[in-house]
Amino acid sequence: MKKNIKVNAAILIIGNEILSGRTQDTNTSTLATWLNSIGVKVGEVRVIPDVEKTIVDTVTLLKKNYNYVFTTGGIGPTHDDITAKSVSKAFSLNYEIHKEAFKILEAYYKPGEFNEGRQKMTWMPSNANLILNPTSGAPGFSVENVFCLPGVPSILKSMLGGLKHKIIGGQPIKSLTISLRTVESEIANSLTKVQDENNEVEIGSYPFFHAGKLGVSIVIRSEDQLKIDKCNSQILKFVNEKKIEIVER
Amino acid sequence: MKKNIKVNAAILIIGNEILSGRTQDTNTSTLATWLNSIGVKVGEVRVIPDVEKTIVDTVTLLKKNYNYVFTTGGIGPTHDDITAKSVSKAFSLNYEIHKEAFKILEAYYKPGEFNEGRQKMTWMPSNANLILNPTSGAPGFSVENVFCLPGVPSILKSMLGGLKHKIIGGQPIKSLTISLRTVESEIANSLTKVQDENNEVEIGSYPFFHAGKLGVSIVIRSEDQLKIDKCNSQILKFVNEKKIEIVER
Repeated sequence: MKKNIKVNAAILIIGNEILSGRTQDTNTSTLATWLNSIGVKVGEVRVIPDVEKTIVDTVTLLKKNYNYVFTTGGIGPTHDDITAKSVSKAFSLNYEIHKEAFKILEAYYKPGEFNEGRQKMTWMPSNANLILNPTSGAPGFSVENVFCLPGVPSILKSMLGGLKHKIIGGQPIKSLTISLRTVESEIANSLTKVQDENNEVEIGSYPFFHAGKLGVSIVIRSEDQLKIDKCNSQILKFVNEKKIEIVER
Repeated sequence: MKKNIKVNAAILIIGNEILSGRTQDTNTSTLATWLNSIGVKVGEVRVIPDVEKTIVDTVTLLKKNYNYVFTTGGIGPTHDDITAKSVSKAFSLNYEIHKEAFKILEAYYKPGEFNEGRQKMTWMPSNANLILNPTSGAPGFSVENVFCLPGVPSILKSMLGGLKHKIIGGQPIKSLTISLRTVESEIANSLTKVQDENNEVEIGSYPFFHAGKLGVSIVIRSEDQLKIDKCNSQILKFVNEKKIEIVER
């Protein structure tokens, strides 16, 4: 059966360190690439501070507007880790010790090392579903359509494999990139015509500088390979007419 | 005179390429670091697609909620560059050729090269203020408290110098980082106490992996150096008591 329902998601990056510029967020591109590969289109990303009211309000809004919400950050043991408490409030659920998470971490640490700080990581919204963490023990969790992941990129990445079967994506979004030795203004009009004739396909144009030379990458995105191919032919036609060189990137 | 007004800003990243995961955004950290240095605190970041209604609605909301809004992306010559048109709508201004921008680009290009695509980059909200571009000619622009910059990181960076005098910041936000050879759970309780006793200071805790070893960076942020120093002493006190090693990062 052909899946053709459009499925979308919002990404919510929680953390003062991103807003201050101290930390360069890379979780957005990790999550977005992964979500696209399973047929989930990212509709928006927000970065917000470690402020409870802001987290509660934003989760409340996004979980209503999108099929899925993925949060990153704020699920560690310190005072600034308030994602679990805030998500509990957003769903009007108790914030309490999750028995399964407690067992996992009790077994993970050496006797005597499962201290109060570490136990904090087992406090979650009541009856949350766990997202297992093969890297450092402490699980993430989900409530309904909201999935809460850690902020450390390597740990987040290691948890996506176990998450895949919980997400029901639509048709995977395919993309094709054509890189040209030209500048955007040379192809702008022709590309506009192609976009106008192919409304359901997303065509992006991105200048690049590589090995000291200017170029433009045209990216065609759609769930439908045939529509991509049609656009591709139309673009190659004007590229050929204008004698523009196609390059590898 | 001591400046003590708090000044905040929102960053709005416009572009499908960030939402698809194809492009890793770096403009957020560039802008956030620069804004912090001139006393402007970033309250939130949003990444949205190249969709006119979404841009208009988001700019309309953010310009009301923040002292400043900085947009990146969507001011080039191609069909997917719709920031200038959308910002015009958000301010109910005409979208028209900006005479000064036209003169700049007419002089910038060789005779005959100032084609229709390039002329598109001179279409702006009526009476917009230009933000000069020392890298590639085409200026950004501002309307009231909304500043529109390009998406290409190197070009954006080159335009910040010319922008500085247009932004009135508050007291610069200072920060101090203490990096420790420990794990978060060992210091969580002590750090919570320090935060509770110093409400006006922002204390963040960030685990790191460096040269195969685990560590935690504690970041203290405030406009007031004395408040930072007070926190620092309290943190160093418990670090010393717990015999935790302080490391360079």
